[in-house]
Amino acid sequence: MSENPENPVPSFRPEARSPRGFIDKRSHQIAIERHLITTVSKVYEDFGFEALQTPAFEYADALGKFLPDSDRPNVGVFAQQDDDEQWMALRYDLTAPLARFAAQNWETLPKPFRRYAFGPVWRNEKPGPGRLREFMQCDADIVGSDRPEADAEMIALAVAGYKALDVPARLRVNNRKLLNGLLTSLGVSESGQQLGVLRAIDKLDRFGLEGVALLLGAGRKDDSGDYTKGAQLPDSAIQPVLDFVSAGGAATRAAVLEKLAAVLTNSAEGQAGLEDLTRIDTALTAMGVGEDAAIFDPGIVRGLEYYTGPVFEGELLLETRDDKGNLVQMGSVGGGGRYDDLVARFTGQQVPSTGFSFGVSRLAAALALTDLGKKNVARGPIVIIAFSESDMGEYFKFAADVRAAGMAAEVYLGRSGMKAQMKYADRRLSPAVVMMGEDELKAGQVTIKDLDLGRDLAMQISDNKAWKEGRPGQVTLSRAEAINHLKSIAENR
Amino acid sequence: MSENPENPVPSFRPEARSPRGFIDKRSHQIAIERHLITTVSKVYEDFGFEALQTPAFEYADALGKFLPDSDRPNVGVFAQQDDDEQWMALRYDLTAPLARFAAQNWETLPKPFRRYAFGPVWRNEKPGPGRLREFMQCDADIVGSDRPEADAEMIALAVAGYKALDVPARLRVNNRKLLNGLLTSLGVSESGQQLGVLRAIDKLDRFGLEGVALLLGAGRKDDSGDYTKGAQLPDSAIQPVLDFVSAGGAATRAAVLEKLAAVLTNSAEGQAGLEDLTRIDTALTAMGVGEDAAIFDPGIVRGLEYYTGPVFEGELLLETRDDKGNLVQMGSVGGGGRYDDLVARFTGQQVPSTGFSFGVSRLAAALALTDLGKKNVARGPIVIIAFSESDMGEYFKFAADVRAAGMAAEVYLGRSGMKAQMKYADRRLSPAVVMMGEDELKAGQVTIKDLDLGRDLAMQISDNKAWKEGRPGQVTLSRAEAINHLKSIAENR
Repeated sequence: MSENPENPVPSFRPEARSPRGFIDKRSHQIAIERHLITTVSKVYEDFGFEALQTPAFEYADALGKFLPDSDRPNVGVFAQQDDDEQWMALRYDLTAPLARFAAQNWETLPKPFRRYAFGPVWRNEKPGPGRLREFMQCDADIVGSDRPEADAEMIALAVAGYKALDVPARLRVNNRKLLNGLLTSLGVSESGQQLGVLRAIDKLDRFGLEGVALLLGAGRKDDSGDYTKGAQLPDSAIQPVLDFVSAGGAATRAAVLEKLAAVLTNSAEGQAGLEDLTRIDTALTAMGVGEDAAIFDPGIVRGLEYYTGPVFEGELLLETRDDKGNLVQMGSVGGGGRYDDLVARFTGQQVPSTGFSFGVSRLAAALALTDLGKKNVARGPIVIIAFSESDMGEYFKFAADVRAAGMAAEVYLGRSGMKAQMKYADRRLSPAVVMMGEDELKAGQVTIKDLDLGRDLAMQISDNKAWKEGRPGQVTLSRAEAINHLKSIAENR
Repeated sequence: MSENPENPVPSFRPEARSPRGFIDKRSHQIAIERHLITTVSKVYEDFGFEALQTPAFEYADALGKFLPDSDRPNVGVFAQQDDDEQWMALRYDLTAPLARFAAQNWETLPKPFRRYAFGPVWRNEKPGPGRLREFMQCDADIVGSDRPEADAEMIALAVAGYKALDVPARLRVNNRKLLNGLLTSLGVSESGQQLGVLRAIDKLDRFGLEGVALLLGAGRKDDSGDYTKGAQLPDSAIQPVLDFVSAGGAATRAAVLEKLAAVLTNSAEGQAGLEDLTRIDTALTAMGVGEDAAIFDPGIVRGLEYYTGPVFEGELLLETRDDKGNLVQMGSVGGGGRYDDLVARFTGQQVPSTGFSFGVSRLAAALALTDLGKKNVARGPIVIIAFSESDMGEYFKFAADVRAAGMAAEVYLGRSGMKAQMKYADRRLSPAVVMMGEDELKAGQVTIKDLDLGRDLAMQISDNKAWKEGRPGQVTLSRAEAINHLKSIAENR
């Protein structure tokens, strides 16, 4: 309790910086992310998903994928040993904690269990440009349903989410069973060769069917002369794979299925995959998910190794450009699919599940580039200028009146003069400042300066003297009128 | 890509459990916390505070308080060494990261810098009943203003926050300078004795003025015969301290100040403290903060060691009772005060700051016990019963119609029969289930069962046969009428 009036500063001064790969977010970015999360949560709830929050830490054995070993306990995750020597780690996604939660509470949960969740996840990776070690995820999953209709719901809710966000995007849907079945029927069983086929298919957008054909066979030389070795499929196997991939170009989901059926005649697994997609199509159509909003595309390769059945990818259809007018490649803005064995790790019991995850960072980046994002700037409050120590009460009274009328307001609380106070309001992106000098107070009036209008008008005035006399964007009104004027300014921002 | 149809389950099965001191939150609790955070954030923004999100990790030297030592790097915080050997730790509050952020960005920030933040913080403490190692904080701070009016704003916004939450609470305000000044003027300078005085004052609520007098002097024997040694003040010092403490009982803030002024005549520091409070009173009155909503109370001791000037504590005025009717002591539901040297740790420059933090967990617990919390149950969606494989499309179509009408809806996606599906809807707290059997589909109708009404009616029917025939709460309607009926059910929940 004893006070040291000199407040000695400690001799060691740490440098003020955030750890590598971690960032601070300011109000504009936060506003966009919140809008995103709130909008998507509403859609999740409309589809019957309930909210769940699991903690940041899980036991490392429950997370599974990155079990710490004694040499390098931290690879991939942020792990540490608890007092009782058990290894804990920060979650690296929201699915592993869901599996743990579902296994722990299986008996008492409503089943199928539909839950959504959002929150930060952490990856202990080398930070790089655009690669953060902490980022948001926003997932919905149905745990305990083997119905293809459950997959259809994930697709429909993804479509509804993008629509609610007003982001033009579509879902591309594939099924692991299709390619599995095709390759088995073609006798392609060696995993290296299967991987080669996946890689070849993944190049369809870049090299076209011709390029894919070369990559399925011996190999392909690119313009620079570099040679990429192919998957070495026999000629007899190349055409079926090309037919398979190009089926994705058909006009409707049903037409894609028809084309695929012709390629997959010899495969029971392929037929099962087609049956899934047929039922997904029926449910999507019933829910009004149009042919443009969700397409069947056997060329989707991403996620095929992780998922066990249907796979979904959200594709942004927006041509986004940065400040310099360059096209920005946003890539996938969401993804998901069916996975059948996360809960079995704990219980031994297979629990078929399906899920979808919105790509929060990329969607936020996309939203920031749209008109909405540009408009949705986090505006500052109305700032009441502090002229005189003895009139602070009057300023606070007016601030309270402005707040009572539904607007954000504050009295400037620094010790600087008029010019610094105006600069402060500028930096806060305030719509207006309020001035209550001696004259105004005597007359029961306030002077309001519309900052945006003032800036616009000032740009048209070249004469410094005229500017000073014109007081652009400034009016003096009674207090009651002033509140209405502030409202009209704030509403037009 | 090769599939193993037997999906072998790994032989090691981790136990599904969350780490000690960490909990899962379900939808009801989440709904209350979200309501709280959203409401308070709106108030913060109305008062001109901008949102800021700092990362979960900070460098340990930036957090300061808990610098890891080589022996026990984890005391108090969750700390770990990064690849480059720098120690990082999860934030234990939101103020230390704010200080780091403000120091790092001081040149470009609008000043004074008003920011609010919410999010989880982590404490590496021994978990116990009700003591979690991860919990939410929700703070607002003004960095860079030495004005007492800044403190007044923190108080006013706390009052506005409780009001917006509809939680009856009041602010108790003290100023460290008052007691500092008093003790100095009384010649009490030894820190152990000062601490004894603080402890004695803190017992006012329990032992009254008489008990405090004993604890200020030689000591006090309680009913069980246990003796507590006192602060050993000379008799001449005891009465001034009692006068000081009992000043808090005066009817208005101004009256408290008047009484305190009489005790603090000999202390410049005490006078400075009174001057702060006088200006705080003026600003509070100007903002319409009533005498009941914020009182001056020199008996507030908590936080006096940490804060350097005014101190605030939010006190719940609600008598909350648990399910068994026992009175629940909620304790403080928020607190804050002025602190002047957090930024100086980095820059060497004193940056006067003041802040307030809502007690999220306790407020959420208080809200859960109120009617609002009891009503604000997270209701499940309207559940469409899945009778027949071949009619799934019809069910999804109707689900989409219900969603389009603004209600949450889902088709049951498990494989169980009617009884299990009804139980599922019950567990989800669904307002209603929708049945579309063969007859209904042929007639273009749906049958709706109002689950709450059904439960109520069923309780009045003792005859099992009558219950079966009566189909309580059940009606069959055209599809269009059905949507309206569902709306009226959902709106009345």
